[in-house]
Amino acid sequence: MSVNLVEATGSPVYMEQVHAIKQRRDSQIPASLRLPKEVIDSAPLDVTSIPASCGLLTDKELAITELDATSICQKIAAREITAVETVTAFGKRAIIAHQLVNCLTDIFLDEGISRAKELDEYYEREGKVVGPLHGLPISIKDHVPLKGRWASAGFLATVEVSQDDCLMTSTLRNLGAVFYVKTNQPQSIMHLETNSMYGRTLNPWNTSLTPGGSSGGEGALIAMKGSCIGVGTDIGGSIRGPAANSGIYGMRPSSKTLPMKGYLAFQFGADGVLPSTGPMCRSARDIDLFIRNVLASKPSLIDVSLVPVVWDVPTSFEKKLRVGIMEHDSVVLPHPPILRALAAAKAKLAASGLVEVVNYKPFRHDLGYDIIRELYFEDGGKIVRDLLSQTGERMLPLTEWVISPPYTKDHDATSLRALRTQRDEYRDAYSDYWNQTGCDVVLCPPFPGTANPHDTAKYWSYTAIWNILDYPGIVFPSGARLNPSVDVLESRTHFLSDADKLNEELYHATKMVGAPVSFQLVARRFNDCLLVAAQKVIEDILKAE
Amino acid sequence: MSVNLVEATGSPVYMEQVHAIKQRRDSQIPASLRLPKEVIDSAPLDVTSIPASCGLLTDKELAITELDATSICQKIAAREITAVETVTAFGKRAIIAHQLVNCLTDIFLDEGISRAKELDEYYEREGKVVGPLHGLPISIKDHVPLKGRWASAGFLATVEVSQDDCLMTSTLRNLGAVFYVKTNQPQSIMHLETNSMYGRTLNPWNTSLTPGGSSGGEGALIAMKGSCIGVGTDIGGSIRGPAANSGIYGMRPSSKTLPMKGYLAFQFGADGVLPSTGPMCRSARDIDLFIRNVLASKPSLIDVSLVPVVWDVPTSFEKKLRVGIMEHDSVVLPHPPILRALAAAKAKLAASGLVEVVNYKPFRHDLGYDIIRELYFEDGGKIVRDLLSQTGERMLPLTEWVISPPYTKDHDATSLRALRTQRDEYRDAYSDYWNQTGCDVVLCPPFPGTANPHDTAKYWSYTAIWNILDYPGIVFPSGARLNPSVDVLESRTHFLSDADKLNEELYHATKMVGAPVSFQLVARRFNDCLLVAAQKVIEDILKAE
Repeated sequence: MSVNLVEATGSPVYMEQVHAIKQRRDSQIPASLRLPKEVIDSAPLDVTSIPASCGLLTDKELAITELDATSICQKIAAREITAVETVTAFGKRAIIAHQLVNCLTDIFLDEGISRAKELDEYYEREGKVVGPLHGLPISIKDHVPLKGRWASAGFLATVEVSQDDCLMTSTLRNLGAVFYVKTNQPQSIMHLETNSMYGRTLNPWNTSLTPGGSSGGEGALIAMKGSCIGVGTDIGGSIRGPAANSGIYGMRPSSKTLPMKGYLAFQFGADGVLPSTGPMCRSARDIDLFIRNVLASKPSLIDVSLVPVVWDVPTSFEKKLRVGIMEHDSVVLPHPPILRALAAAKAKLAASGLVEVVNYKPFRHDLGYDIIRELYFEDGGKIVRDLLSQTGERMLPLTEWVISPPYTKDHDATSLRALRTQRDEYRDAYSDYWNQTGCDVVLCPPFPGTANPHDTAKYWSYTAIWNILDYPGIVFPSGARLNPSVDVLESRTHFLSDADKLNEELYHATKMVGAPVSFQLVARRFNDCLLVAAQKVIEDILKAE
Repeated sequence: MSVNLVEATGSPVYMEQVHAIKQRRDSQIPASLRLPKEVIDSAPLDVTSIPASCGLLTDKELAITELDATSICQKIAAREITAVETVTAFGKRAIIAHQLVNCLTDIFLDEGISRAKELDEYYEREGKVVGPLHGLPISIKDHVPLKGRWASAGFLATVEVSQDDCLMTSTLRNLGAVFYVKTNQPQSIMHLETNSMYGRTLNPWNTSLTPGGSSGGEGALIAMKGSCIGVGTDIGGSIRGPAANSGIYGMRPSSKTLPMKGYLAFQFGADGVLPSTGPMCRSARDIDLFIRNVLASKPSLIDVSLVPVVWDVPTSFEKKLRVGIMEHDSVVLPHPPILRALAAAKAKLAASGLVEVVNYKPFRHDLGYDIIRELYFEDGGKIVRDLLSQTGERMLPLTEWVISPPYTKDHDATSLRALRTQRDEYRDAYSDYWNQTGCDVVLCPPFPGTANPHDTAKYWSYTAIWNILDYPGIVFPSGARLNPSVDVLESRTHFLSDADKLNEELYHATKMVGAPVSFQLVARRFNDCLLVAAQKVIEDILKAE
């Protein structure tokens, strides 16, 4: 890892406590699954092939970990594989992955195997599965509580053992899920990278790059196939960013559709912009599998803050989908690989004749991004400083950046009301604009580039703009990877903004080689079912020979 | 009117402007519809029979104004009556009513007749109605804009002529509605009474009592049959309170189900507790008529803040409805007529065997009410004082009461976050509690008494508690009226609270004679369809011989 990287550090007391939690976690790695030092030291930038090559996994384990969640549920139900075999395979691979990209915060494979054994026995005895996710291993982001497991809200001061499942994990458990690992998130859970007291998570495709964040542990783990599906959260891109950086699938549903009751957070009551939770996975159909089953359990009857949405994904459309293509947001031009992939997708979609393709011009994304940045920390970050000072935890630069003026300030009730009014007016104006375009969905970049070098992810607007609007979004792989011989920066003398210039300066094709190139598809608020259906139509066209 | 009543007043400049707007309104009353001075001066406390007895309405007009909205739509569609006849009848009756109870702020019957004429001609020409509300006259609360008509957000400083319809009124217009009057609301729109720069609205059943508020102009007008259906708003009881006081029907839907885009307000961005808009009318089926048709126009596609609820009122239930009966909220015991009517309803429901009846104990309504009071004015009422000072408008005592400490203060971001957290925790705890009771709906008082004497409505909790929870509620008439010979106060030495004692002191059966006794039925958040269906089941039982 480069010497220039900023490590999580703090006072001696902080360092002592961090040492203890890291030791706790390291001790969870069985000796039999430790990678030889030379494998780690000599690892290439792209570490995704090491789980298969390291010799620690059997052929059957490797085969199981290639499956998506839908296949796993089907195969367990068909008795082709057992729940124990499944969680063992993913657990072993997760532990291998962790040693390469530092993606886990808590490892409890024994607990997972024990639960899987119960499920296998139940199936044997009763002749039926306990639920539609019977035996499915699911990885869980650190701040999402699982009974008896470690959790935190992004600061050492908030580390605790959860007394109970949250509603999401109890729901998944009831559906048959098996838990075995929890995954890393950044300090404050408010970076589009993943660096915390548990250390920094690396991008599996190129460890000199970030896996994104804040659900970066999930993204890296799933890309390493140490998990086929996991639970992330997103208030500015925290599902979609890491999904994009690691080349997997991720959906941020409209807020208040999936349950977050019981999730740890440190700004309860700060509701100027709402988070959302959703799946990160390795196929589009797994998004549907996850949401469909969680909603079938009627979480809105338990979490009264939820909107009782009807999950009914259309399988056909009355008329051709109208797909807007937004190449850039008029503020920051994405890096060459993104523009290349989007141009190719646009051409292919248009040529297919199966959808209507139009250019989509952004509507004042600069303004929307300014507003949401200010909404994130209505107290100007006071609470962040308080939490850090409680344990002597040092503020990481990306934390400092996100709470700093001019984008944040300590508001009073009057200025907050003005800010929220500005938000509402923006939402109204945006909605009017979108309606005018007639688009069903918009295909756009998830980030102004592929995975960026560590400690540089400061332009969130490609995802955060949809958070302020609360429009659901799915990120999915384009299939392309950054290719230095093709993805050459064109020389420009005019820049769209200072942020545009900074973004261009970050681009070094050779250093970023191999980074997955991803797309983001968005739909209007609460049009989550339409979005899922449209993503399938579009991906089918893009994948067609 | 008693000499003790507080009149809206202010600086000489204020008085001059108020004089002008009142003169504008008074000039809208045609000479032919002016009631003789002696009729007004000699009016009994109960003025509801004067429209029929005054001689200004024909038999047909009187018959039309007896109809509910559903009947009117049917009869116009069946060509039994015309749109012109209909709006003329209601308009004339509204103007008569206004002279007795001061319920209108803008009168434009000519405009209504002209629109009705267009509709009649369209029907004649095209052979079909323009929409399901073809020709239906609808009255509109002052702060709900209608293009070209007067509107205000509850202060003289906010009086304006609306440049456009809001989404609700444009939707209703497209459905075929005819507008002809706007109705009074109190200063600040935050009293459960109705006293403004347009003067005080009186309760038609007993003019020494308040019609409630803030949609008190609507309630009084509809009780006088000067309208069959109107649009109100409710953030603490402003639909349900006046519906109860005037003995009509009113529903506060879950927030963000019906469109409020474009409504005037003076605290945009203060979203700690959300308002809702809904119908006030003279039959339960009219609630369904209104909401069903507004939602069929898909307002959530235009007002992006809305939740796209599916309107599908069940016509049968898998098992018997479980109806909780809450006689009081453990803080303030309602006056005798409310307790009498509720006890009778409970007995009749139980005896019917058609529903399951259980006692419903309130869950910390005291706490919930404290929280919502603080949420109403997060700046401690600064904005109210600012708006008043702009025109020299004097603060009315009920305005002062609602913005006063200890219930409000000027918050900063940190204390606001704490307050909103308290709100969310209360909502969660309440939901858990409700679920535990297993109730589908709860039947309870809408107010701790029938309509109270003017200037005394300070205990909002019977309605406001459901606002903080965002549980939908329907108020409907019990059929009973306050009867001094039956509704005798039992002597008590122990009171539930200071508010309880104050409430008891307000009770003077002989002075409150004739006040309608109403019920409130509530359901869980977003269970609006269940609520509408349950209300029908319950009312059918209560009305059965």
